Formats: sequence, C-alpha cells, structure tokens
Amino acid sequence: MQSKPPMLMPAEPFSKLERDAVYKAIHTRRDVRDQFLCDPIPEETLLRLLDAAHHAPSVGLMQPWNFIVIRDAQQRKNIWQAFSRANEEAASMFSGTRQIKYRSLKLEGILKAPINICVTSDRERGGEVVLGRTHNPDMDLYSAVCAVQNLWLAARAENIGVGWVSIFHDADLREILEIPAPVEIVAYLCIGYVDELYDRPELEAKGWSKRIALRDLIFEGKWQGRP
Amino acid sequence: MQSKPPMLMPAEPFSKLERDAVYKAIHTRRDVRDQFLCDPIPEETLLRLLDAAHHAPSVGLMQPWNFIVIRDAQQRKNIWQAFSRANEEAASMFSGTRQIKYRSLKLEGILKAPINICVTSDRERGGEVVLGRTHNPDMDLYSAVCAVQNLWLAARAENIGVGWVSIFHDADLREILEIPAPVEIVAYLCIGYVDELYDRPELEAKGWSKRIALRDLIFEGKWQGRP
Repeated sequence: MQSKPPMLMPAEPFSKLERDAVYKAIHTRRDVRDQFLCDPIPEETLLRLLDAAHHAPSVGLMQPWNFIVIRDAQQRKNIWQAFSRANEEAASMFSGTRQIKYRSLKLEGILKAPINICVTSDRERGGEVVLGRTHNPDMDLYSAVCAVQNLWLAARAENIGVGWVSIFHDADLREILEIPAPVEIVAYLCIGYVDELYDRPELEAKGWSKRIALRDLIFEGKWQGRP
Repeated sequence: MQSKPPMLMPAEPFSKLERDAVYKAIHTRRDVRDQFLCDPIPEETLLRLLDAAHHAPSVGLMQPWNFIVIRDAQQRKNIWQAFSRANEEAASMFSGTRQIKYRSLKLEGILKAPINICVTSDRERGGEVVLGRTHNPDMDLYSAVCAVQNLWLAARAENIGVGWVSIFHDADLREILEIPAPVEIVAYLCIGYVDELYDRPELEAKGWSKRIALRDLIFEGKWQGRP
C-alpha cells in the first residue's frame, strides 16, 4: 500500500484572537505545586494532552517518548518518599536564611494531583543511526522535553495545571516504575485541574529569584558577554 | 523597595475557540526546511517570539537561555558550510537506498530563512546550587529546550516557520559564534515567514519514517515493554 504523496498546503493563518490565545497559554502557564483540585481528569481530556505531547517535534521523527500514567495512591506515596529523601539532600546544600526559605517552598504535588505522568525517552528507538542525532546524541532527550512543553501548554488551555518535579534520584524512580536501562527518565509531571494560579512564576512571587530583562538575553551575531 | 506579595489569582479559563487555537498551533507546527519566504520579520514580532521563549519554565527560575540572532549573510554562509561538512558525515552513516533518500532531503534553511537564532544555556547562571538541578544537572538544558518549543508555537501563530538544525559539530558553531565554554549550545533555529506547510511532518510525508500510534506509547502505572 502506498502512502499519500507529500503534500504542501497553504499555511492556515491565525486570527488575532487565535494568536492571542497561544500567547495567553504561554504567558499564564505556571509550574503548579499546590493548587491542584481533586476533580478527576476525564480520559478523553488526558488523551488530548498526550496527543499534544505526541505531536512535538522529534529528531528524525524518532518519537522517542513514552508516557507512564500513575494514579495508584500507594505508588504515588512511594514516589513521594523518594522525592522526600532527595529533597532533604537538596535542602542541605543551601545555608542560613536561604535554607529556611528553601524549606518553606512546596516543590511538588505528587500526592495532591490526581494524575502523575513520567515522560521517558527510549534512546534505542529508530535504530542505531537516527537522522539529526549523529552530532548531538542528546537530541532525543530534547525531543521528549518538547513533548512535555506541548503537554504543559495544552493543559493550560484545558484549565489543568502541571508541575515538573526534578528532585529525585534517577535510580529510585527507575526502580519504582520498572524503567529499563536504555530508556531515560526525562520528566516527572503532576497534573490536575486548577482554579487558581500565581500571577507570576511562584519562585518569583515568593522572592526566591527574579525575572531577567529580555533585552539582556538577546545578542546580535555572536556571544557578547554574560548578562 | 519591597516586591509585590505573592498573589494567587483565579486561573483565567480558555474559551472553546481559544483552546482550539492552542491545539491548532500544536498540531500544525512543522519543522520547516525549505518553505521560508524572504519577507523580513519586524523587530516587534521577533521580540514577541523571544519573549514567548523567555516565559518558558526554567529550573529554579534559572532562565539559563540566551538568544543569538544571526542575520549577516557571510556569517550564515560560514554556518552553512559547517552544516554541510557535518551533513556529509551524517549521510555516509546510511547505506544503499537509505543514503540516496537521505541525500534527497533538504534538512536546513540556514541561507533561505532571513533570521537564524542560536539558543544557548549558561550552565553557571544562578550560582553553584540551583533549586531543582541538584539531582539532574541537565535540567538547565531542558529549560532551554522548553524555551525553543514556546518560540516555535508562538511562531506558528504568527505564520512564521521554524526549523531546528542539529547537524553540526558543536566546536564549529561555538567558534563561529564565539560561545564560551560554560555555555552549552542547545538549538540552532532557522526562522522566516511561510505560506505553505506540509500536511504532516515532512519526514512522514516523504516516507522517511512513520507516526507511531499514541496508544502504543502510553503505559499505566509502570513501564510495560517496548512498542
């Protein structure tokens, strides 16, 4: 059976309202740690989010991602304990008032969010040679990150919040989720409906860090020193 | 001067039309290699794209990214030559009809797109300890990838195409763009207005690779074997 011939189509333009909606998703997206509601996410909504992730760009059309959906309370408790151990180590790396501040931050919604999703990258998918990955072997990981960001923005448009938890020992998550060696864990996401969000990134709102001015991040033609 | 107190606000819902617009950007976004028009991109439009990138999530609000905007024709010619050398090596890794197919694909728009942007990650930004990066030192690279995906979707909503070129020796780009050692090159993007796009990813349309069924990529509770 032949596949359809390659087809160039007119690029469908976006109306002002449509364009603004894309920017609204980008600018009001937050890394949610505590605002999750317990309302269940319907399966068709979850599938829309995962389909959005699946339509991310991927190197050589490798589509290296898998999505492990975690709902079981006991399993999430085990994962929370793994977070908790790692977070104690992370806290101890700050000193004085910075450590006190760190400990005051809630950094995950593992138990509160009704769904957790682990996003992985299968580094052996697509065979030994993958178009576009020869000179940068990490391009498959970057593809999986693009999938996360697609999911995150689609979720915002569904009034669903997402939080990315990175405070784990890889080996702990790998053991709990039975992830084999050639598969890399890229992201662990907490997902649930929200009715409130911070007006700025939470770490900015809580004085942990500041927004850098965009103009200090743009260079013309070549690198021009640190901002 | 005190910063504003942390502020939780009602999460602004998306209308059906707004939600559909976000999915439209996600589903019609393409990795553009050849459809670039020569129309210049107005500075205010470029700044909207870069501001979208700058509003990506970043580990510990590190904002590790910089955006090197490359317009000069001679500089783009140098970069194209670096691509061309790397692409010859990449082609030689395929054999027989696969190599012929590979050589028939156009994989970059470095000279055709009016603007190129190199997205970097400054691994030393934010000091020695960055919240959330202790257990996964690559989280800053992943943040920069999220910025790329934000820019890519915003560009789609502006009828601007983006192509990610990964076929380079890191050292070549680093030399041409004078990028210092602690800064990692994450992505090299070709950017320009488009009036036509493929109806599917170009590598799928041209028979290089196939779309994997979403259901084969979703696992419940734990890893469950390869698709």
